[in-house]
Amino acid sequence: MYKDIGCGEVREKDEGKILRFAGWVHKRRDHGSLVFIDLRDSKGIIQIVFDPSNSADSHKVALSLRSEWVIEVKGTVQKRIKGAENPNLQTGNVEVIATDIKILNRSKTPPFEVNEDINIDENLRLKYRYLDLRKPKMQHNIKTRHIVTKAIWDYLHENDFVQIETPILIKSTPEGARDYVVPSRVHPGNFYALPQSPQQMKQILMVSGFERYFQIARCFRDEDLRADRQPEHTQLDFEMSFVEQDDVLNLVEDLYKSLIRKVSPETYIPEKFPRITFQEAMDLYGTDKPDLRFDLKLIDFTNVFANSDFGVFNKTIDSKGIIKGLVAPDCSSFSRSQISELNQLIVENGGPGVFSLTRANKKNHDLEVQDIKSAFSKFVDIEKLKETISVSKCRENDLLLICAGSEKIVNQSLSLLRNKIAEYLNLIKTDSFSFAFIVDFPMFEWNTDTEKWDAMHHVFTSPKDDHIKHLDSDPGQVIGQLFDLVCNGVELGSGSIRIHNREIQEKVFNIIGYSSNEVSERFSTILESFEYGAPPHGGMGLGLDRLVAMLVGETSIREVITFPKTQTAFDPLFDTPSLISDQQLRELNFDINNEE
Amino acid sequence: MYKDIGCGEVREKDEGKILRFAGWVHKRRDHGSLVFIDLRDSKGIIQIVFDPSNSADSHKVALSLRSEWVIEVKGTVQKRIKGAENPNLQTGNVEVIATDIKILNRSKTPPFEVNEDINIDENLRLKYRYLDLRKPKMQHNIKTRHIVTKAIWDYLHENDFVQIETPILIKSTPEGARDYVVPSRVHPGNFYALPQSPQQMKQILMVSGFERYFQIARCFRDEDLRADRQPEHTQLDFEMSFVEQDDVLNLVEDLYKSLIRKVSPETYIPEKFPRITFQEAMDLYGTDKPDLRFDLKLIDFTNVFANSDFGVFNKTIDSKGIIKGLVAPDCSSFSRSQISELNQLIVENGGPGVFSLTRANKKNHDLEVQDIKSAFSKFVDIEKLKETISVSKCRENDLLLICAGSEKIVNQSLSLLRNKIAEYLNLIKTDSFSFAFIVDFPMFEWNTDTEKWDAMHHVFTSPKDDHIKHLDSDPGQVIGQLFDLVCNGVELGSGSIRIHNREIQEKVFNIIGYSSNEVSERFSTILESFEYGAPPHGGMGLGLDRLVAMLVGETSIREVITFPKTQTAFDPLFDTPSLISDQQLRELNFDINNEE
Repeated sequence: MYKDIGCGEVREKDEGKILRFAGWVHKRRDHGSLVFIDLRDSKGIIQIVFDPSNSADSHKVALSLRSEWVIEVKGTVQKRIKGAENPNLQTGNVEVIATDIKILNRSKTPPFEVNEDINIDENLRLKYRYLDLRKPKMQHNIKTRHIVTKAIWDYLHENDFVQIETPILIKSTPEGARDYVVPSRVHPGNFYALPQSPQQMKQILMVSGFERYFQIARCFRDEDLRADRQPEHTQLDFEMSFVEQDDVLNLVEDLYKSLIRKVSPETYIPEKFPRITFQEAMDLYGTDKPDLRFDLKLIDFTNVFANSDFGVFNKTIDSKGIIKGLVAPDCSSFSRSQISELNQLIVENGGPGVFSLTRANKKNHDLEVQDIKSAFSKFVDIEKLKETISVSKCRENDLLLICAGSEKIVNQSLSLLRNKIAEYLNLIKTDSFSFAFIVDFPMFEWNTDTEKWDAMHHVFTSPKDDHIKHLDSDPGQVIGQLFDLVCNGVELGSGSIRIHNREIQEKVFNIIGYSSNEVSERFSTILESFEYGAPPHGGMGLGLDRLVAMLVGETSIREVITFPKTQTAFDPLFDTPSLISDQQLRELNFDINNEE
Repeated sequence: MYKDIGCGEVREKDEGKILRFAGWVHKRRDHGSLVFIDLRDSKGIIQIVFDPSNSADSHKVALSLRSEWVIEVKGTVQKRIKGAENPNLQTGNVEVIATDIKILNRSKTPPFEVNEDINIDENLRLKYRYLDLRKPKMQHNIKTRHIVTKAIWDYLHENDFVQIETPILIKSTPEGARDYVVPSRVHPGNFYALPQSPQQMKQILMVSGFERYFQIARCFRDEDLRADRQPEHTQLDFEMSFVEQDDVLNLVEDLYKSLIRKVSPETYIPEKFPRITFQEAMDLYGTDKPDLRFDLKLIDFTNVFANSDFGVFNKTIDSKGIIKGLVAPDCSSFSRSQISELNQLIVENGGPGVFSLTRANKKNHDLEVQDIKSAFSKFVDIEKLKETISVSKCRENDLLLICAGSEKIVNQSLSLLRNKIAEYLNLIKTDSFSFAFIVDFPMFEWNTDTEKWDAMHHVFTSPKDDHIKHLDSDPGQVIGQLFDLVCNGVELGSGSIRIHNREIQEKVFNIIGYSSNEVSERFSTILESFEYGAPPHGGMGLGLDRLVAMLVGETSIREVITFPKTQTAFDPLFDTPSLISDQQLRELNFDINNEE
């Protein structure tokens, strides 16, 4: 070892000790005849003092040091003199008087400073990721990721789970996203695929008699990348046999509580994660990923406004749309331009426009039409207006915002509005992880483009026991044993109780329109395994990147991934994807199609 | 949960408890009016008794049960009657009197029995891996793998290592083996590669200031598979900054000792792993992977036989070959056919044929030519024969075996012979893990085919400090800071102190004949990173599959991998690699070349 102790680990108790340090020159300051070096390693920073009267040779070398040079230093720990302490450093009460120094490596001038926390173009950061990762913030992020992963291992090991590695070179069975594929040289024309998740493999592990499996699994999706997706991401993947939905939810709740207590103990987390049905979530928040750090709930006025004289509402109701709204508390004084801004936000996101309503400071039953300020007040019967107000509990300082249109669009719009209002009113508690489970998702949703049923989540989800009967008669009515973990408006993972019966599984494939040919090509292994004693089972896949990002307060998962790719799935550090040699291509037996 | 307790967890203290169990029908036996079911789950086996006088319904269902059906049973725990205990089961003193049973799933008749330990064709086992994995032995293997992995995590976490995930989609820089490649859809004609190991990434992590990294890393090699290789394998990959060779070796020694103590506490393991130089290993054992469970050492007779009248020896010495041998203790009575068998073994493996020698029961200095039985005794001066005997310490009951030829061939042959003799003499201690480090490998070996220097290990290894000067003058003389961990004749991993200096790294690339074009295409990132303050660093990659196989006493790593591939890199379970759809091919923009 080139060092006796980490730079950040020296304390007053070490006074007088002669110790060796090694690390990077974080900062150099020359003060009169003295040279001060902030020496940084993975444990933190220590101040090293080079005094020519102490060691002329070392002092001379110290004068040549530049940022990010790598040095080994030997010296004596001493307390700093009164007034020279640095309370920002854990080692701020001590310093090291150098007697020897050795330059282990030099550094060119970095393209950006490691010792400053300024905004740098992300592409430059990624190209020089090895410098970017030296920043204390990035060190903290990656180490937190380690601590989270370790805590998951410990918790699941304690709870009798067995970590099992499943292969990365698997069969292509694209669902949801495109597979990345790997051409086989030995079997020309054939391909492996990289797993979008270990789904089929972990179910087969259940059939194999492992009753509690987990894996920190790498998953691959060849997507046209959305804002914060990566071609490869990591998920905590687990599966359990002989369980019901609540067993899975209770385990995850307990796991996440123990994680947060370990990594972020001051953060609020609900003692019991609320379990909200999909329908409730849509009704109350307009989304299945509600941010529960604040309360604001949506209110349905569709019945209230039935048979009014207001054309927009009538048309909406006639076309089976809905009318919903939410109360923005204490926002009655919003200016016309403020409201117009909200309206614009909604319209820009494909919404229908927003009606606002305020009411006078009167008892509800005394209200008259002129007390209610709204674009539609004169078209709607006063009793209906009063009902609107009593149903919504809109007080005199409040602002009621209403949208009308198709269910999907109205919910989307109001969910957006809800977040915007919360932001504006500062209702979003920071330091709060408002976890909840969304449960009881429908199994299928009607795709109006293809005029077919799509699986709402993945195709292996089991219907609720008493809904199996609807599979034949009315797929749209079938509720699945399907659940999401959400937190602060973000989906952190998804799971289900799975089908373990060939016949039901085939029925589901049939509903979503897979041909028997497709089924046998893509799913014959799992279907066959169901015929040899598959136990009831269920599990989840929970995003690790997103969880860690949340825990360290980052909005982008690229801040918690050592070597992420850009939005075009490009790696600026290694400059890849890239060309491969002609020999490699020849061995793989295929030609690049250059015609387009 | 469908169960209150694992099948294998019931004990006498549970007598009288009413409990629910769920698992697989391991065996059914009908005894008079009673039905006995051995119910198996991941915790073991419990005997369930169905008595019609207790529950006629359950008894009736029990009569219909077949092997591997999945059932849920409720019943009362009772002690077995005297004489009916089964000492082979941990639950052998108790049984459960069933009151309720529910069939959770049925099973077709399995293609092989899960409850019998007979030899089954491996392809059939792999095709029905989910049945194969139910066998107690396979459950044990995979669970041991988990325990080993967990122990590695715990140990390295305690020792300040940070687990860091490196990407799977990386740049193709084939070394040693072929890369598996992944075509990019977004960047047509370009490819990612799957890592053969995280080598460059972990070195860049060191440059990034993480001083202790580890990862249980998946590695991929598109090789024409040798006997026990897999297209993907797992290694414990770690790297440390500011360390010297001994720091790395000490850490690994301590880690492996702690692992073995945890997983296999009765097994012998040396308190200190011997550190043997490459040269010593070749001299004494003829291999850099010596099996140290037994002693037998090789003896060099090249000097002894110089200037004899024996043509074979003379020719050998003239062509710079060597003459070496080993003593097979107490084997003087080997028959002609036994010796001829040994000879054949060597010749079949490309060796030169074996000379045997025995000596009469006389004092060494009294020996005469006729006392020494050997094909060459009459061609070699008696003094040289006496020297042969004294150097080899060949006693009257011993058999001296000698090979002459090129250094490589002789060492290979004698290494083989050494193992064979040890086997024959039963010298190989089972229950012994004879670990050792082989150190001081040469950096380069001369490739007589290409007439070029090859890197003996990988290209990032640092020469010993005082050998750097030979890089220019005499590459063959350069010893690297290179080390292998071996155990019982198997290489378990390899590591080195790395180069952290651009100039030296380029010199090494130059010696092994990479063009500057190649270097910049394949290694520009790591070379550039060395110019920004790369610390001295080193580490290892240690095979996990092989280690676990050794710990559970399996010879094939396929026994410790859940879903392995065959020797043609084929997965019989999922039937892959396989064709992909035309749409997938089109999106990837390439054509399969069918011209052959």
